[in-house]
Amino acid sequence: MLAEKKPADITASTPTGDPWLLTPGPLTTTPEVKQAMAHDYGSRDHHFIDINRCVREMLVDIVHGGGDFTTVPLQGSGTFVVEAMIGTFVPPTGKLLVLVNGAYGQRIVRIAGYHRRAVEIIEVPEDRPVDPVSVERALVADAGITHVVIVHCETTTGILNPVAEVADIVQRQGRRYLIDSMSAFGALPLDSREIYFDAAVASSNKCLEGVPGVGFCIARKSALDKTKGNAPALTLDLYDQWIAMEKTAQWRFTPPVQVLAAFHKALEIFAEEGGVDGRYRRYAGNCHLLVNGMREFGFQTLLPDDLQAPIIVTFLTPRDRRFDFQDFYDRLRRKGFVIYPGKLTVAETFRIGCIGAIGPDQINAALDAVRKTLDEMGVTDCAAAAKPAKPIG
Amino acid sequence: MLAEKKPADITASTPTGDPWLLTPGPLTTTPEVKQAMAHDYGSRDHHFIDINRCVREMLVDIVHGGGDFTTVPLQGSGTFVVEAMIGTFVPPTGKLLVLVNGAYGQRIVRIAGYHRRAVEIIEVPEDRPVDPVSVERALVADAGITHVVIVHCETTTGILNPVAEVADIVQRQGRRYLIDSMSAFGALPLDSREIYFDAAVASSNKCLEGVPGVGFCIARKSALDKTKGNAPALTLDLYDQWIAMEKTAQWRFTPPVQVLAAFHKALEIFAEEGGVDGRYRRYAGNCHLLVNGMREFGFQTLLPDDLQAPIIVTFLTPRDRRFDFQDFYDRLRRKGFVIYPGKLTVAETFRIGCIGAIGPDQINAALDAVRKTLDEMGVTDCAAAAKPAKPIG
Repeated sequence: MLAEKKPADITASTPTGDPWLLTPGPLTTTPEVKQAMAHDYGSRDHHFIDINRCVREMLVDIVHGGGDFTTVPLQGSGTFVVEAMIGTFVPPTGKLLVLVNGAYGQRIVRIAGYHRRAVEIIEVPEDRPVDPVSVERALVADAGITHVVIVHCETTTGILNPVAEVADIVQRQGRRYLIDSMSAFGALPLDSREIYFDAAVASSNKCLEGVPGVGFCIARKSALDKTKGNAPALTLDLYDQWIAMEKTAQWRFTPPVQVLAAFHKALEIFAEEGGVDGRYRRYAGNCHLLVNGMREFGFQTLLPDDLQAPIIVTFLTPRDRRFDFQDFYDRLRRKGFVIYPGKLTVAETFRIGCIGAIGPDQINAALDAVRKTLDEMGVTDCAAAAKPAKPIG
Repeated sequence: MLAEKKPADITASTPTGDPWLLTPGPLTTTPEVKQAMAHDYGSRDHHFIDINRCVREMLVDIVHGGGDFTTVPLQGSGTFVVEAMIGTFVPPTGKLLVLVNGAYGQRIVRIAGYHRRAVEIIEVPEDRPVDPVSVERALVADAGITHVVIVHCETTTGILNPVAEVADIVQRQGRRYLIDSMSAFGALPLDSREIYFDAAVASSNKCLEGVPGVGFCIARKSALDKTKGNAPALTLDLYDQWIAMEKTAQWRFTPPVQVLAAFHKALEIFAEEGGVDGRYRRYAGNCHLLVNGMREFGFQTLLPDDLQAPIIVTFLTPRDRRFDFQDFYDRLRRKGFVIYPGKLTVAETFRIGCIGAIGPDQINAALDAVRKTLDEMGVTDCAAAAKPAKPIG
């Protein structure tokens, strides 16, 4: 049987009685978004078809894609649409340059391995951004590289990669550009008029603040139109998904209708907040408040502020022996805040997210909960043992 | 902008104000199932981990799988897990015999084509069940066939295929058996103690009455354990999904947490209704009432009663020229009932589902709506033009 949903000693909770999720997703959504799921929708019925059309159009508008771009939504988590993008856009005869500085870049390498695509990798340590100069060098050296893929914000650390600078290089070198914008899309600008790309993917449940269950690819139509026959799997074939959806306005296979309805509501709220600018402002405020507050306790961030995207912050585990992450996590959860473990290959870290339907009140309450928790645990020294100079590479 | 959700002249609706979905899914769920989605869940938090564990165990119990079987859930629609089953279980050196009598069997052939797997096909007309004798003949003739896949209930027509008889033959011939039980699972028996299979797949939103967004494979552990390296895609790799979930109790990639919570609630309701027996009884009652009522109006079913599964019923389009399907659909929808178009390759048909959180009251109300609609349209002759003897093949 299930454990009790809400512990008796919970001291803060969302309007629906849940702990606040300070994670990279699934995250806390607004009550309105969840309410949109309290209905059944026929997937071939006109009401749902309208919802789907609106969602596709609103996503193209976020990148100012005009008539050149289309949205191809896909069932599943973000990784499904990342894999679908790689599988659909990189032809069997192509060669993919993967820019790696974390687990999500490494995952793309693994995906390309499944698809038996030729791959070139440029890897830098997890606390360093991708280096545009090295990309240019690799493209000049290897004319066989047809596609370059970058992770917009590496959730592993929360680092921001130079998506625009690399775009210019890729375009100058006449190659095709693919962007995994999963944890950045909607909060960090991605303007197709300024950044030349063939495809960018993200999901419903990151900065757009929907619930998980659907991803999407915003694709340049002229590039997508040349991808027929590339995909390694029917369900991951974005070309086929696109053609079928254009023809019938319906999904090829049953869509997660409630997730789509929630996503549509989330996009309306996103527009009301002022789109990318408004979302960025709130998240940047959350991040600033969080980092300052945690630094006041003595915590250290993995990244310097100029590399930190306002999405998720990696903190180094304190050297104080009384600090135990699982205990820290459990105590914070009982106080109404769910944080996230670290994912670094070497350094001991944990992460706290800045995204979702949260603002300064929640960040302040979370900081208060951290303070109380440190007191309970008797942790007095939150400085890290030693900041790793080069976690990998 | 979106069209109005609920037309002013709607005359029947679910407790949440939606039309009743008489379709093969997404279908009408209970208010309790939808209510389970009104929360945010952290996917790596213990509460969700408990939900996931319960769901996996309950699904194995439905097939009486004991310690021999495991559930591997997968993000996406049913087709995602069908494709994952084919891709994971049939090795590159294998050969798959696909038994086809409708669109879903044909889809499996298409999937195997994407995966570049060798395929043998036995196809019969859409209004005929798979013929076990022909399967035995094919297996005897071709020792290279390693796997046989069957569609339990072909949603194309609603026909029931002889899953148990074919299982015996496949086992006797020493081959491996895969079952697409999508629209049957939970309502039609699939007992692993009586039917020998390596894998059976279905989804959250058919007879188990959850919402769409997750599929699952109930797999024989000893068979799944031999599938490492087979899958054509990372996200569709059931072996990798299984290993990771056993190791961490978590999903590899973000699960649709609200969909899983709804599925867990749906499985609790399923157990309370008496499991497969209880669900079958209600659906069989729905089907009987529906078919009798429609026959009283003069409609003809595609299938004879002994081939009809109580899931979805295919009716032949009336010869009366005043009958127009889109008009019929729209008028029924305005009265609160969403039905489903036909999918046959030759015969003009439409479909009405018997599944979901509906019972005799809803079927009677739907029949009343059909009667009123026929009156409004001036349709007096509901007999079919001519029943096609052999739609295909």
